[in-house]
Amino acid sequence: MATGGHLAKHGFSEVAASRGESAYVVDVGPFYIASIVECLGSKALVADEMNKLTGKSYYDSIAQDTIAMAINDLITVGATPLVVQAYWAAGGSDWFSDGQRAQALVAGWKRACDICKVSWGGGETPALAGIVADGRIDLAASCTGLINPKQRLSVGDKLAPGDSIVLLASSGIHANGLSLARKLAERLPQGYLTPVTPNLNFGEALLAPTVLYSPVTEALYEAGITPHYCANITGHGWRKLLRHPATHTYRIHTVPEVTPVLKFIQEHARQDDKEAYSTLNMGAGFALFVKAADAQRTVEVAKSQGVEAIVAGQIEAGQKKLIIEPLNIEFGDEALQLR
Amino acid sequence: MATGGHLAKHGFSEVAASRGESAYVVDVGPFYIASIVECLGSKALVADEMNKLTGKSYYDSIAQDTIAMAINDLITVGATPLVVQAYWAAGGSDWFSDGQRAQALVAGWKRACDICKVSWGGGETPALAGIVADGRIDLAASCTGLINPKQRLSVGDKLAPGDSIVLLASSGIHANGLSLARKLAERLPQGYLTPVTPNLNFGEALLAPTVLYSPVTEALYEAGITPHYCANITGHGWRKLLRHPATHTYRIHTVPEVTPVLKFIQEHARQDDKEAYSTLNMGAGFALFVKAADAQRTVEVAKSQGVEAIVAGQIEAGQKKLIIEPLNIEFGDEALQLR
Repeated sequence: MATGGHLAKHGFSEVAASRGESAYVVDVGPFYIASIVECLGSKALVADEMNKLTGKSYYDSIAQDTIAMAINDLITVGATPLVVQAYWAAGGSDWFSDGQRAQALVAGWKRACDICKVSWGGGETPALAGIVADGRIDLAASCTGLINPKQRLSVGDKLAPGDSIVLLASSGIHANGLSLARKLAERLPQGYLTPVTPNLNFGEALLAPTVLYSPVTEALYEAGITPHYCANITGHGWRKLLRHPATHTYRIHTVPEVTPVLKFIQEHARQDDKEAYSTLNMGAGFALFVKAADAQRTVEVAKSQGVEAIVAGQIEAGQKKLIIEPLNIEFGDEALQLR
Repeated sequence: MATGGHLAKHGFSEVAASRGESAYVVDVGPFYIASIVECLGSKALVADEMNKLTGKSYYDSIAQDTIAMAINDLITVGATPLVVQAYWAAGGSDWFSDGQRAQALVAGWKRACDICKVSWGGGETPALAGIVADGRIDLAASCTGLINPKQRLSVGDKLAPGDSIVLLASSGIHANGLSLARKLAERLPQGYLTPVTPNLNFGEALLAPTVLYSPVTEALYEAGITPHYCANITGHGWRKLLRHPATHTYRIHTVPEVTPVLKFIQEHARQDDKEAYSTLNMGAGFALFVKAADAQRTVEVAKSQGVEAIVAGQIEAGQKKLIIEPLNIEFGDEALQLR
């Protein structure tokens, strides 16, 4: 974008390779600065429906989801998140007069900041009657971080055949695929109260908070492992593994266990595997592309942070495609057009 | 906020004095990083109404308003804005299929970035049916900047009796007071088409884009002038001059000309001066508190950037209050409670 040139006036420059990546990176000399703003999406609507059914507030986990949207994108470029700002735009100031709900949002936000070791810098809580629907809230987070030392930058130039693909477990649907899930709930006779497992209904399963992956990427740095590239698996499901612009073949030999709620959605939406893996995270919330020699240790570091992980496959020279061998699925270059 | 302590883990620290200021500041060693997220508010509703009446799109100026909300707050702490991220949450993806409107938003956004010499890093354009009202858009901007050199930090520790108050001209209502203006439009027989001056109707007068003040603060730095403190005059009108927590008297001896649209609002809303100056910017969009010896030169630097300015008064030892002598108005400490 032409505006990147303005940084020269200040003695700085953009990292052009970060255009099209999940966070924007500027070279300010001693280190890089990464920044981002991300939206939760429609997951809050599920929390609102479930609140009507159970009387509970789910905004503590909704808060974590919102921060995860920003943090999990910011870390893909190698950044350590430092500051999160809250953007909570309500349909009216009365949104915040539901004390239980407002306190849950604040408590969940603070807890997610604690997990990621970021400072909650402040934010904005406008009341936007006429723009945001009555009784609703539009949640977003902005995040600023540093890539420090600069060698931690991972915008993909180091990615090469032979690299291993490590997949980090998701906790459920995270915050992508909710439109589909909400449509499904409308069709189910018991709606959100339909059991997914004997002790868990559909609504609560959907509301499992998104995993925050920055403790893993920080622990990797401390262990001396610098990923060659990262992909946050959100919209477009596993097609996000094809995010990098280079021409490589991504061969998956092992898939993680599919979270029950995702299996439930796949079944009830009658999706075949190809459709499910191209829409949902199917048990993998984040992909790390690392040197093969680092793969097993990457898994161990993730587990040390309480996040399940597997060495799922490797990168090979060849056409740009993703091959999920255990499921007999292939996605070609045309499957993902983000740029 | 307790989360600020997390920065120590990364070898950094927050600038505690920035808590409660308009932007949050972190000390990262060679310089400070400032960050912020800001919402436009309800001004887009005026653009939507005016579009129905005239067929024109006003989203180019709405874009500038949104960026101004973030930039004009960020620069109060002495920061040079570097990166802006766009947050455009629409009521549905069809919002963007109005090509004229979408292009105006993009063009205005880029133009504001050009004026402020910031890089447009990217952003998020979610379609949030069910959360954002149908046909509407919730606009916000996040901004990251550097305070470099660190001596530029202006969180108020240098503010002292004897300092001059320089006021920078506003272009109109900016983006605060729009609820009042919208109510007024409903009551006027000709609504937004009521003339404010012979050639300007109320709607178009309201939609004059907010002045971007960062060219002034950057030019001041180049001229060797470091403000002791700054206040962005937004909500709460001139009471924002009392923003600093210290106990000083702010004596105003000269007020700027009141923009016609603000005079119009004051008259039609039957506000006395005290009410008007406590709600609207009344011709002053930004306040710079500078060393008395720098005051006249500050005015000249502002004018060199195309922004009208006046030396409006000075700070004195005494009770915390704002005295607007030409209007015989006083605001005490109780007038502004932001912290």
